[in-house]
Amino acid sequence: MEYLVRMRVDLPSDLDPDFVATLLEQEREYSHHWQRTGKWTGLWRIVGEWANYSVFDVEDNDELHQILSGLPLFPYLEISVTPLAAHPSWLGDSEPEARG
Amino acid sequence: MEYLVRMRVDLPSDLDPDFVATLLEQEREYSHHWQRTGKWTGLWRIVGEWANYSVFDVEDNDELHQILSGLPLFPYLEISVTPLAAHPSWLGDSEPEARG
Amino acid sequence: MEYLVRMRVDLPSDLDPDFVATLLEQEREYSHHWQRTGKWTGLWRIVGEWANYSVFDVEDNDELHQILSGLPLFPYLEISVTPLAAHPSWLGDSEPEARG
Amino acid sequence: MEYLVRMRVDLPSDLDPDFVATLLEQEREYSHHWQRTGKWTGLWRIVGEWANYSVFDVEDNDELHQILSGLPLFPYLEISVTPLAAHPSWLGDSEPEARG
Amino acid sequence: MEYLVRMRVDLPSDLDPDFVATLLEQEREYSHHWQRTGKWTGLWRIVGEWANYSVFDVEDNDELHQILSGLPLFPYLEISVTPLAAHPSWLGDSEPEARG
Amino acid sequence: MEYLVRMRVDLPSDLDPDFVATLLEQEREYSHHWQRTGKWTGLWRIVGEWANYSVFDVEDNDELHQILSGLPLFPYLEISVTPLAAHPSWLGDSEPEARG
Amino acid sequence: MEYLVRMRVDLPSDLDPDFVATLLEQEREYSHHWQRTGKWTGLWRIVGEWANYSVFDVEDNDELHQILSGLPLFPYLEISVTPLAAHPSWLGDSEPEARG
Amino acid sequence: MEYLVRMRVDLPSDLDPDFVATLLEQEREYSHHWQRTGKWTGLWRIVGEWANYSVFDVEDNDELHQILSGLPLFPYLEISVTPLAAHPSWLGDSEPEARG
Amino acid sequence: MEYLVRMRVDLPSDLDPDFVATLLEQEREYSHHWQRTGKWTGLWRIVGEWANYSVFDVEDNDELHQILSGLPLFPYLEISVTPLAAHPSWLGDSEPEARG
Amino acid sequence: MEYLVRMRVDLPSDLDPDFVATLLEQEREYSHHWQRTGKWTGLWRIVGEWANYSVFDVEDNDELHQILSGLPLFPYLEISVTPLAAHPSWLGDSEPEARG
Repeated sequence: MEYLVRMRVDLPSDLDPDFVATLLEQEREYSHHWQRTGKWTGLWRIVGEWANYSVFDVEDNDELHQILSGLPLFPYLEISVTPLAAHPSWLGDSEPEARG
Repeated sequence: MEYLVRMRVDLPSDLDPDFVATLLEQEREYSHHWQRTGKWTGLWRIVGEWANYSVFDVEDNDELHQILSGLPLFPYLEISVTPLAAHPSWLGDSEPEARG
Repeated sequence: MEYLVRMRVDLPSDLDPDFVATLLEQEREYSHHWQRTGKWTGLWRIVGEWANYSVFDVEDNDELHQILSGLPLFPYLEISVTPLAAHPSWLGDSEPEARG
Repeated sequence: MEYLVRMRVDLPSDLDPDFVATLLEQEREYSHHWQRTGKWTGLWRIVGEWANYSVFDVEDNDELHQILSGLPLFPYLEISVTPLAAHPSWLGDSEPEARG
Repeated sequence: MEYLVRMRVDLPSDLDPDFVATLLEQEREYSHHWQRTGKWTGLWRIVGEWANYSVFDVEDNDELHQILSGLPLFPYLEISVTPLAAHPSWLGDSEPEARG
Repeated sequence: MEYLVRMRVDLPSDLDPDFVATLLEQEREYSHHWQRTGKWTGLWRIVGEWANYSVFDVEDNDELHQILSGLPLFPYLEISVTPLAAHPSWLGDSEPEARG
Repeated sequence: MEYLVRMRVDLPSDLDPDFVATLLEQEREYSHHWQRTGKWTGLWRIVGEWANYSVFDVEDNDELHQILSGLPLFPYLEISVTPLAAHPSWLGDSEPEARG
Repeated sequence: MEYLVRMRVDLPSDLDPDFVATLLEQEREYSHHWQRTGKWTGLWRIVGEWANYSVFDVEDNDELHQILSGLPLFPYLEISVTPLAAHPSWLGDSEPEARG
Repeated sequence: MEYLVRMRVDLPSDLDPDFVATLLEQEREYSHHWQRTGKWTGLWRIVGEWANYSVFDVEDNDELHQILSGLPLFPYLEISVTPLAAHPSWLGDSEPEARG
Repeated sequence: MEYLVRMRVDLPSDLDPDFVATLLEQEREYSHHWQRTGKWTGLWRIVGEWANYSVFDVEDNDELHQILSGLPLFPYLEISVTPLAAHPSWLGDSEPEARG
């Protein structure tokens, strides 16, 4: 089951730079972990912003909330979630050459 | 180069039903065409709305505008476009099992 | 899996009154059907508006979209969906007297 | 008489962590208390946010304000309240099996 | 129990003028009726708009919804409702001279 | 001449508690003073918020601004003002029993 | 007593052109009348819009509402009103040369 | 060439009171200076807010920006600018008695 | 003197197609005319929308309003105007190679 | 490929003035660098705001993000990006005299 998630980072300007560096390293590892499980299936930078759009493919609402609220940056993120359903015109995830 | 696109359908209530049916069939074929070219790479229904989120992977802004403005439903669509860039934490599109 | 759904009815003022009456009767039956299945678990009128808040308990995003897009009034509804997760402070749905 | 309430937590980032921990423990107990009285009748986490939707069933506007303004987290909450009325299509709170 | 209600009139421009005149006369009588019962306790024109702010003093949410949804102009009104509670600094409704 | 005024209190979280207590006591006295003059003619708490709706009956815009800008909490208030006019359907402020 | 008023014209596209021409001529005469009384003291076109900003200097809220609701275009106007007070830094309306 | 300008003051609560007092005195003198040149031609307090509406009559966009960005309070102001054009119904700035 | 202008086309769906075609041809010629005078100095399509961003370099606010309100599509345009000033970091319009 | 970019500066009021001066000098040099490469092709101050509108002509979304996220002021900027496409009515960038 898929969701589109928008995350915007809003760090207070007075955080300790070492703390921030550690946080960002943890965030990257956390993201890598969930990408490898096949649950964080899309991740793009929004041009010009410290923000991303992500796609998650999870079991249910609870699992999504646990992944998102576990993000090391969670206290500093503004997150919005859009639940997605199958679109009747979608041909599927096979390779484009094979769709003809 | 990728973009996230949100499309919402807003058909006037007095359109001829046959005209609408033709339009929707053309829209589906048009979408299939661009999926097969590998340029319309994601398509999801937004739950509860006559709307979708799509991902496009195109040459440039002009190509995206030509695809979007060619949609049979274009006169009845409210469209917003977000340009996307590579995210430094993204592991890539290889299969999740192969990412470890 | 639960969702909060807000629905606002926005009927064009030039619809045929008999058509509207039929639609509203169908809407009521449709709502009763899904309440009886245990999937439409909450339904309240928003004071002063032709609108409601509903709670749905369904299998997944797709099932919710199928129920909502099947509403007889769907073409005239403005719908927004909020996915809900378990709250750690919630004692559960047992009777309040039994919670102590 | 029922109300839908949305609460979003917005803690200043420089609060003492022990103070926050105490506050959150008091908040949980306060919520449990009002759930046991049968007045706080619904509580859900909003996916991806430090926020909840709640349903309250109270005597009147004054009682609701007293419960909400007594929340230990009240100074740090953004709250919005929607008064709810009975919906004519609602079958009631009997068990779904019994509704047929 | 009191509520602040904002009502804005939005009549379609193609309504029959006689129908509108009848509606407005019914609206005035309906308003007079609820003022005489002591339930519609305040009514002001918003300067420059076809809109009003009203105060209602009713039994509960259901009664307020029944009064509002019974307004002859209800299908053409945009209504928002704010529940009000007693303010601790309010001296009460006795005459101002008597408050000293 | 009447106005509807909405005031929301937004105190910085690092204010000295004694200073805040003094401010709130002064605010209450200031409010009582203007109620006794018959110029602050309505005051309600907005349910769930540290905010109020008030009605003022003053000589002109200048007098209203002087009363509002003199509020001890003024530097911490977000205020919006709506000018009100007589409504043609209003029966007046006589007692409801006497309106028949 | 002064007010800033913003008016935006929103004519339905299916109005009879002769009716519109008559309306616009009446609007101009109505505006001239109130300018000559010294009550409509400022009038500017907003660049790029069919809209204006105006300043009115009237007795009270009721007089302003009567002038605005009497505008021939009133049914087709979106109006917002901001009450203005004297500014302590304003030198007054004497000629600039005389202000030194 | 005229512009309507809205300015809202938003001073951080931790500024030194003497610094603020000096700033406000400088602001008043700066405003007086530009009023005397005939370029700051209108200035009103917005009722209930620490904000003003102003009219400027300047050579061009650059001159307006230089005046506004030179305001002593500029770092603490939220400013919005609306360019104004002549309105065809405006009778001009001669005295109202002379307009007949 | 320059301005950024955003124009969005919003044609009623029931306009006669021949009328629309004529209008669009006139619009193109009108745009060409003002480009040739050197006053309409920039024009871009907004990707995915029937809308454009334009830059105008004109004498004053009045001239800009006359150009914009003379657009054949003006009755069907939603226009917003932002006045622009010289930026101190701008190197000017000489060719980039010559800027070093 | 072109983009319209809006940047608003929002510096925390407690930054060290020397640090700010250095940052602004770096920002100017950075802007000059990208103007000389022919990629930052337009830059205007928004009248009355510490903000600018810019036009960029770059290879793709990634290059634009790298330029923007490399701005010395980036942590203090609120940025929004609009992708632009060729407009069919645009005559091109030759000198206006040559367009006839």
